Amino acid sequence: MVIAAGLIRLYDFLSSGNAYKVRLLMTQLGIPFERVDIDILKGESRTDAFLAMNPNGRIPVLELNAEERLAESNAILVYLAEGTPFFPKARWQRAKVLEWLFFEQYSHEPNIATPRFWLTHFPITEDRRAALEQKYRLGYEALDVMERHLARRAFFVADEYTIADIALFAYTHVAHEGGFDLAPFGAVRAWVERVRSQRGHIPITAG
Amino acid sequence: MVIAAGLIRLYDFLSSGNAYKVRLLMTQLGIPFERVDIDILKGESRTDAFLAMNPNGRIPVLELNAEERLAESNAILVYLAEGTPFFPKARWQRAKVLEWLFFEQYSHEPNIATPRFWLTHFPITEDRRAALEQKYRLGYEALDVMERHLARRAFFVADEYTIADIALFAYTHVAHEGGFDLAPFGAVRAWVERVRSQRGHIPITAG
Repeated sequence: MVIAAGLIRLYDFLSSGNAYKVRLLMTQLGIPFERVDIDILKGESRTDAFLAMNPNGRIPVLELNAEERLAESNAILVYLAEGTPFFPKARWQRAKVLEWLFFEQYSHEPNIATPRFWLTHFPITEDRRAALEQKYRLGYEALDVMERHLARRAFFVADEYTIADIALFAYTHVAHEGGFDLAPFGAVRAWVERVRSQRGHIPITAG
Repeated sequence: MVIAAGLIRLYDFLSSGNAYKVRLLMTQLGIPFERVDIDILKGESRTDAFLAMNPNGRIPVLELNAEERLAESNAILVYLAEGTPFFPKARWQRAKVLEWLFFEQYSHEPNIATPRFWLTHFPITEDRRAALEQKYRLGYEALDVMERHLARRAFFVADEYTIADIALFAYTHVAHEGGFDLAPFGAVRAWVERVRSQRGHIPITAG
């Protein structure tokens, strides 16, 4: 594959919510980029070549040039959003955005993304069924936290659409694919539609 | 308990590495603060009063005043470190610090902190033994990533002691309490000693 000099490259996997966050933000910011598909199901994120780029063996990875590569979807969001309306200027509001980004990676994604990944790609073994039950319990707890917060707010921080919304949208809007029922979460569902209506929105399947 | 006006309050639990990160940074920054012990083993982080402060029911929580509270240890670190030598000024280096902070919460803490918590406080049931095996596998993978990175570096980012080191030190230096053997990780062990030798360092048990 020939790479145009200076074009940002995203090591990507289309059904990954973590990669989608970055695709969505770059599209809404109007940043041109090139996608490189890494088929994580075929082990392409664990090859020596990939591990040389990200020793943690995960996508997405943002590549600015041969020396500068950044892993961790939410770190990439902050890096790209700095100085734009997607990341607030006020110190306290930036702190609250980070609070939600860490909530997403610790309490939300491991419980809401994983059932979708398993149900989509693997047989449900006895071990996995037990693990699923715990993930549903913790995943619904995370959705409860979001529901209570959104009951009186349009967006997560500063009443504006920020990278906190992008990060939490990525796996929430496809939670049903992992067996979650969003019907009782009216505020979350209304927020999902608000995020979808933002200018330049693209669906998770858009490359 | 009477609270002096203007004093930052930390809702804390002494054996928690996540809370220790904040205690360590505030001590090294010379920020006076007041500790409020929350006994998570007695459910004190799940009371209605606590959930009103942090709906996610976790410590640490940093309280600036009656309206401003911040959860998520690594968000608190960034908030406190901004504008200090603990958080670099250069945009790319800040991004790399965030990359390690998200690595810590996603790939490191869930696998390295949890065995320590279980072994310290709970009987090892059959279910927990199976879960432990997976956590050891993933925890050693995280230690491998750290070892390779530190093989040619004194600290995680910019060859300086930053909040990336504080965040990763918190549970790495007590990993043996969860059954991890750090003997094969020479670069990690040397880095642990470098972090310990930083000015104003306090041990995890220091309130």
